[in-house]
Amino acid sequence: MLGNFTYCNPTKLYFGKDALDGLSKELPKYGKNILLVYGGGSIKKNGIYDKVIKILKANGKEIFEDGGVMPNPTIEKVHEGVARAKAAKADFILAVGGGSVCDYAKALSVSIHCKGDIWKKYFIDFEEPTCELVPVGCVLTMVGTGSEMNGGSVITNHAEKLKIGHVFGEEVYPKFSILNPEFTYTLPKYQMVAGIFDIMSHILEQYFSGTDDNTSDYVAEGLLRSLIHSAEIAVVDPNNYDARSNIMWTATWALNTLIAKGKTTDWMVHMLGQAVGAHTDATHGMTLSAVSIPYYRYILPYGLDKFVRYAVNVWGVNPAGKTDEETANAGLDAMQAWMEKTGLVMNISELGATEETIEGIAKSTLVMDGGYKVLDAKEIKSILKASL
Amino acid sequence: MLGNFTYCNPTKLYFGKDALDGLSKELPKYGKNILLVYGGGSIKKNGIYDKVIKILKANGKEIFEDGGVMPNPTIEKVHEGVARAKAAKADFILAVGGGSVCDYAKALSVSIHCKGDIWKKYFIDFEEPTCELVPVGCVLTMVGTGSEMNGGSVITNHAEKLKIGHVFGEEVYPKFSILNPEFTYTLPKYQMVAGIFDIMSHILEQYFSGTDDNTSDYVAEGLLRSLIHSAEIAVVDPNNYDARSNIMWTATWALNTLIAKGKTTDWMVHMLGQAVGAHTDATHGMTLSAVSIPYYRYILPYGLDKFVRYAVNVWGVNPAGKTDEETANAGLDAMQAWMEKTGLVMNISELGATEETIEGIAKSTLVMDGGYKVLDAKEIKSILKASL
Repeated sequence: MLGNFTYCNPTKLYFGKDALDGLSKELPKYGKNILLVYGGGSIKKNGIYDKVIKILKANGKEIFEDGGVMPNPTIEKVHEGVARAKAAKADFILAVGGGSVCDYAKALSVSIHCKGDIWKKYFIDFEEPTCELVPVGCVLTMVGTGSEMNGGSVITNHAEKLKIGHVFGEEVYPKFSILNPEFTYTLPKYQMVAGIFDIMSHILEQYFSGTDDNTSDYVAEGLLRSLIHSAEIAVVDPNNYDARSNIMWTATWALNTLIAKGKTTDWMVHMLGQAVGAHTDATHGMTLSAVSIPYYRYILPYGLDKFVRYAVNVWGVNPAGKTDEETANAGLDAMQAWMEKTGLVMNISELGATEETIEGIAKSTLVMDGGYKVLDAKEIKSILKASL
Repeated sequence: MLGNFTYCNPTKLYFGKDALDGLSKELPKYGKNILLVYGGGSIKKNGIYDKVIKILKANGKEIFEDGGVMPNPTIEKVHEGVARAKAAKADFILAVGGGSVCDYAKALSVSIHCKGDIWKKYFIDFEEPTCELVPVGCVLTMVGTGSEMNGGSVITNHAEKLKIGHVFGEEVYPKFSILNPEFTYTLPKYQMVAGIFDIMSHILEQYFSGTDDNTSDYVAEGLLRSLIHSAEIAVVDPNNYDARSNIMWTATWALNTLIAKGKTTDWMVHMLGQAVGAHTDATHGMTLSAVSIPYYRYILPYGLDKFVRYAVNVWGVNPAGKTDEETANAGLDAMQAWMEKTGLVMNISELGATEETIEGIAKSTLVMDGGYKVLDAKEIKSILKASL
């Protein structure tokens, strides 16, 4: 463990089948006007909307709705939400949905009382908010992004073909999040599986970086093993509470800053995936799965020791009689086989990318410098081509 | 992952070689009168006391000292500290020391404005505080108890031969803790090693319980592997920053509630060890090491599957060609060999316990019901005898 760091994660989590009871404990702490933020309306079909409305009314709240948050929330939608929140004099934002809805709620939180160009300030210049924040709480209905316990907010700008995440400080974290694994049962399998890979990718982005021995990497290995095990059950039996609850809990700890503490991180798979997403509007987790194996095969020689460790500690590869390269590749073989069995999208052409769009996707790809190899433009294009 | 739970851990951690810089960021949030709590005076020899005093003065604080906190802080000392804190009109308690000093500071926090018999209220009846609390911050100089990021407070009552821990709620957690691994370098090896086993025991107490598949157990395995690895380095090279910092970070996460979430826990080794401690005043971690192997050998048949998992996932035992009992015992063999190599006390006679004191120690042992076997009085005596 090297380096100085601070750790503070004040989000209160209510977890389990009765988690929504926590909402009544939290609501009295905040003002009367609630901006209720949600997505495409699935919460109206599965009954979660009604349950939340009932609790809000029982707590004497005034409800102002802001539905229709899209899977990749846009800056235009943020502007629209800011206007609604201002008109409502919102005291609190309650996000009911998946990571996109939480991300969007955080973008509103820092923008409602902010002057100036929000896109430029937060997503181009990465400035910290200096205005008054409107507090956020989450009722999670989809698992993957970890947005329920962190400061992350990913927003898409279609005009600029950019999808960019800002990781805000702890004052922007949700004050509380409600995590009921059963709320995720009605999600289509495609979305569940995409979420599972989003979790895996979050862990790997933090794991495949650095050469020091580090407690964070051991914890990451534990989370990965739990995820792999529970995903195998959930894919066959999506209503298995044990599996779905382990996946939900793993998602939270995969991206709430813990396993990045004291170490460097990569995030290049997310940069590639987000660029694919900006050009195709594909499901986030599937953009990550589609580029991961080509990316990791490419950087393997530059981080060989870590890929050997990954193969042995996470995938149970027996290194006896193998060269390090063979062990490392056997780990990626096992990962690839698991991904295929899980039903993940394994190439970007399936998401709508073509030979002709590679150039544009490559141009939209931000380059990170924490991984085992800092990619140049040619390498990015080559990895994207290998992902077709 | 089963059951409903809440998770909230608001303690802010400053970690690393520059961690003490965090003190100046935190102090302005609190009032002028600081009760500075510390132990036997080692912080005056190693310079930490001077550094802290300088920062307190630079922040314009009025300092009231309460030194001499013993390794097993007594209820008499708590009463004395309460009187000092009242006289000082303490706005904040700064604990500089190990877990005992943090535990003591938390006991003061809940007692200064409390009416009635503190021992009975908190350590016999386990009531929650209803009085105004005096906030606590920690500068950690010894690693093991995890007290820096939880609500635990273990206090000894010599008159009643009892050593009892109360785990208070999040409002009693330290507001911040300063974790500089270098501050632990001057600790004698005996104390360092005792702390390492205290960490291991915390993890095992939460691991050896329940039969469900659970993310918490995977994270526990990761923490154990990191601890075992770093301890092997630290025992040979105590000033190895990587090893000492990994151990410090593992200690915090071993007992800040995370790895107990959604599962049952045991804590019987701590009950046995605390009873030994109440009768011998021995170092906490060594009372745990001295009873662990006999306890785990005894309960192994009742939790066989978990002991097999422990052997394979934590100690790398190859189960091929072995019965489950053989695999499980091979895990405990590996643990025992590692403990001996680490320099841990392996029997309670070395701590001052005798055949004649067994009866009294057994009587002081609280019985927990979360482990694989609820012990009766005869079994407790038998395990203590096997620990002699």
